[in-house]
Amino acid sequence: MSGKIYVGVDMGGTNIKVGLCDENGQLLQTFEGPTGSDGSEAVLTRIADYVRKIVADSPYEWEQVAGIGAGIAGFMDIPEGFVKLSPNLGWRNVPVKKTLEAKLGKPVSIDNDANVAALGEAWSGAGAGIPNVVCYTLGTGVGGGIIINGKIYQGSTGMAGELGHMSIVPDLEAINCGCGQVGCLETVSSATGIIRMANDAVVRGDKTTLSLIENITAKDVFDAAKSGDEASLRIVNRAAYYLGRSMAVLAVIVNPQRFVIGGGVSKAGDILFDPIREIFKKYTPEAAQEGVDIVPAKLGNDAGIVGAAGLNLR
Amino acid sequence: MSGKIYVGVDMGGTNIKVGLCDENGQLLQTFEGPTGSDGSEAVLTRIADYVRKIVADSPYEWEQVAGIGAGIAGFMDIPEGFVKLSPNLGWRNVPVKKTLEAKLGKPVSIDNDANVAALGEAWSGAGAGIPNVVCYTLGTGVGGGIIINGKIYQGSTGMAGELGHMSIVPDLEAINCGCGQVGCLETVSSATGIIRMANDAVVRGDKTTLSLIENITAKDVFDAAKSGDEASLRIVNRAAYYLGRSMAVLAVIVNPQRFVIGGGVSKAGDILFDPIREIFKKYTPEAAQEGVDIVPAKLGNDAGIVGAAGLNLR
Repeated sequence: MSGKIYVGVDMGGTNIKVGLCDENGQLLQTFEGPTGSDGSEAVLTRIADYVRKIVADSPYEWEQVAGIGAGIAGFMDIPEGFVKLSPNLGWRNVPVKKTLEAKLGKPVSIDNDANVAALGEAWSGAGAGIPNVVCYTLGTGVGGGIIINGKIYQGSTGMAGELGHMSIVPDLEAINCGCGQVGCLETVSSATGIIRMANDAVVRGDKTTLSLIENITAKDVFDAAKSGDEASLRIVNRAAYYLGRSMAVLAVIVNPQRFVIGGGVSKAGDILFDPIREIFKKYTPEAAQEGVDIVPAKLGNDAGIVGAAGLNLR
Repeated sequence: MSGKIYVGVDMGGTNIKVGLCDENGQLLQTFEGPTGSDGSEAVLTRIADYVRKIVADSPYEWEQVAGIGAGIAGFMDIPEGFVKLSPNLGWRNVPVKKTLEAKLGKPVSIDNDANVAALGEAWSGAGAGIPNVVCYTLGTGVGGGIIINGKIYQGSTGMAGELGHMSIVPDLEAINCGCGQVGCLETVSSATGIIRMANDAVVRGDKTTLSLIENITAKDVFDAAKSGDEASLRIVNRAAYYLGRSMAVLAVIVNPQRFVIGGGVSKAGDILFDPIREIFKKYTPEAAQEGVDIVPAKLGNDAGIVGAAGLNLR
């Protein structure tokens, strides 16, 4: 097989997923192995082994590897490839790029997990072929990534694309966010936010079928809403409302051609997407809506591997 | 005199201002002449004459002119240099770039007035030497420009940086904006918005010294606030509040090092800037505040000429 190949590494606390992509971001092969908890040096040696193994097991030669990328949850110096803190991995001050480059003799890049998932979708997922895309990942929190001209936009200090921490909830209904501020999008539009609103509704005695459920999940809320439970529908609409308003703001700042929404919460489908689109339309100047669409992500859990592989595209 | 020079044109409905800048964005010389209302062809011929004249009257040679830029209020196709509609100039479908390049034999670029003012401040004004800057122009409306790596960021369809049309006012207090949407920043933080809130206060009988003034201006409101008029102070704080919240959002999207605020309203000084800074601090995650400042513009009315000259920087 000819052509360059790119290796992506999705570093989770329990397992490490590795994937091979071709020059078009097509995922050719994957491998998954344990992360281990024997310290960063041992984990990085293991990653290097996994990377060599996936290439050895493929129809490609090591020489064809154009670069290796890794998506990591945590705070990092992206240009230096240095992880300052990853609570997930239990790492502090780990020179990932330098260490892996020494072990593998190939260019290594790292970025945070939300940016990497955004790049994956932009490269060969729901944003393929579109230069400017904003991606949301709706999970425990609200992650985000801004892709400009096919590249992750980092901003001055790597804080660009922290969509979950856009403070857009009005004071009257704002609550504290884990980030230390108030009114962040994440407080209402993440799974955690949806569950909180559901528990609040039950506790205050709202008439809702959710009161029959122990340990309410975000999926329970969407299911109840689909069955016509009014309290659940209000919660879903509130989560969608602030997503739509955040996109209306992004439309006149980033002015992307497309918004991509992924993550577990996005699986709710039309009941979430319809009100998002309606609110976006209501609050965005017409000229900034033209040709802009809001679509579900395509790559699912693979977005992280694909995007990590794409970090070394030049 | 050696070195390249750049010519900037600020096209107003009544007068055209032309300026010469050196390679560092220093304004060397200016000239102002009437726009005329004899049609776009005649006006463009006049502009070409003004450009030749300012260079001829300077210690520079025509050969040193590296490019000519023009800032225009209106809708345009920026890459094509084509003005679709400028109500201000009474123009529709005018090929400015093509026409001026034919007349002058030099590269010509155009952009909208708010973007051009932002570029001027970023080049040699309050944002000099800083790669990523967001500039607000608070006048009749709220204009804006986003500078990334020293260049105007346009977005997919030229709608990026329309800061006045970030819809961030909550529904309960939102009003319609001229753009057709609701809750835009411009409805509260422009001179027009401030005057509207002042007139509302007078009409509803609030106890305020503004009730003694005929034709209230934004400056009247700031002056009254400085003198301790509570209704005026509430209005100023409201204008500042939404500016601060819009910057908190931009801090996690664009993640600039600096916000620059210019335009007539910005002359109010600390009474406006202090609450903006306070609100920004309150609603922005700490990591996105680090090293970020909010400062007044420096170039005043010259920002437009300087930024227009800077459009041809490569």
